[in-house]
Amino acid sequence: MKKLTEAQIAEHMKALPGWELGTDRILRKYRFKDFVEAFAWMTGVALIAERMNHHPEWRNVWATVEVELTTHDAGGLTEADMKLAAKMDELNRLD
Amino acid sequence: MKKLTEAQIAEHMKALPGWELGTDRILRKYRFKDFVEAFAWMTGVALIAERMNHHPEWRNVWATVEVELTTHDAGGLTEADMKLAAKMDELNRLD
Amino acid sequence: MKKLTEAQIAEHMKALPGWELGTDRILRKYRFKDFVEAFAWMTGVALIAERMNHHPEWRNVWATVEVELTTHDAGGLTEADMKLAAKMDELNRLD
Amino acid sequence: MKKLTEAQIAEHMKALPGWELGTDRILRKYRFKDFVEAFAWMTGVALIAERMNHHPEWRNVWATVEVELTTHDAGGLTEADMKLAAKMDELNRLD
Repeated sequence: MKKLTEAQIAEHMKALPGWELGTDRILRKYRFKDFVEAFAWMTGVALIAERMNHHPEWRNVWATVEVELTTHDAGGLTEADMKLAAKMDELNRLD
Repeated sequence: MKKLTEAQIAEHMKALPGWELGTDRILRKYRFKDFVEAFAWMTGVALIAERMNHHPEWRNVWATVEVELTTHDAGGLTEADMKLAAKMDELNRLD
Repeated sequence: MKKLTEAQIAEHMKALPGWELGTDRILRKYRFKDFVEAFAWMTGVALIAERMNHHPEWRNVWATVEVELTTHDAGGLTEADMKLAAKMDELNRLD
Repeated sequence: MKKLTEAQIAEHMKALPGWELGTDRILRKYRFKDFVEAFAWMTGVALIAERMNHHPEWRNVWATVEVELTTHDAGGLTEADMKLAAKMDELNRLD
């Protein structure tokens, strides 16, 4: 996995309006109706992440899930982060 | 939990168009986009079922889930079955 | 994925004592302490299955899970079925 | 739910050796073999939490899960936190 350039990141961010750009990472806070909706979504994401062998750093408090994506091996953002972010959004029925 | 009468069951079935009435049970086959969507939904249902302490009999094959609901202790259908069926439908984003 | 020969299947079955050989499939019934243990295990299996892109046919009734494994594309049993069976056993804390 | 006294908390902590006492909360970091083991455990915990209607604050990064338990409505620790902590430990096959 190759680290994306600033220009590549900027291009990807256009397609991820709910996401914020941090230092070498992208972040989003998802809000669901309740814990059931939040954890069902997390399970879907977990399956996708395991299949990609690329996992999120995430924090869940009842109906909210704060996600951070980065690629440690590349020391920054890669295509895998952008792809996982897009899949997380797609699985979010409340969007 | 009290077993529902035939008239009560008929009334409930009007609100559950996707479900079929079997002998002492109701049945529905859900079809999802893929295994990820199917299992994420199953996890949401599992959380609801555990909270209600009323669990489905279900069979999953990739993107399909066949559900049967009955209340063994009552020897038939009860309010719990109808409530769980409604919650399963509600959690199904494809409906 | 190539269909296994009868001799290959027999060899694999030695390492899977909890499993039964059916027609073109292997079967096992797992019994857990309760629904929580059963579904937590199912989630682990779901993650493994999604990563392998090889999924079980399974039926859950509270603390029991009946599993059937086969490879439809091969018209019988393949290495993938044997590998998934071994991983299911490994994830089962009650074994 | 009534907030526990310092003496009650100290008593409970004896039975929770893996846990640390923070300000109005208890904390534990679980380490699993891999993401599959971590998320399967999280799903079991999610089911228990939903049944208790008492949820953790937790952060997952691949095979680690950092948990914080507190009872917001009580402004501190209650029996529910101690019970959930004990159940989390019990579900952890690596202990």
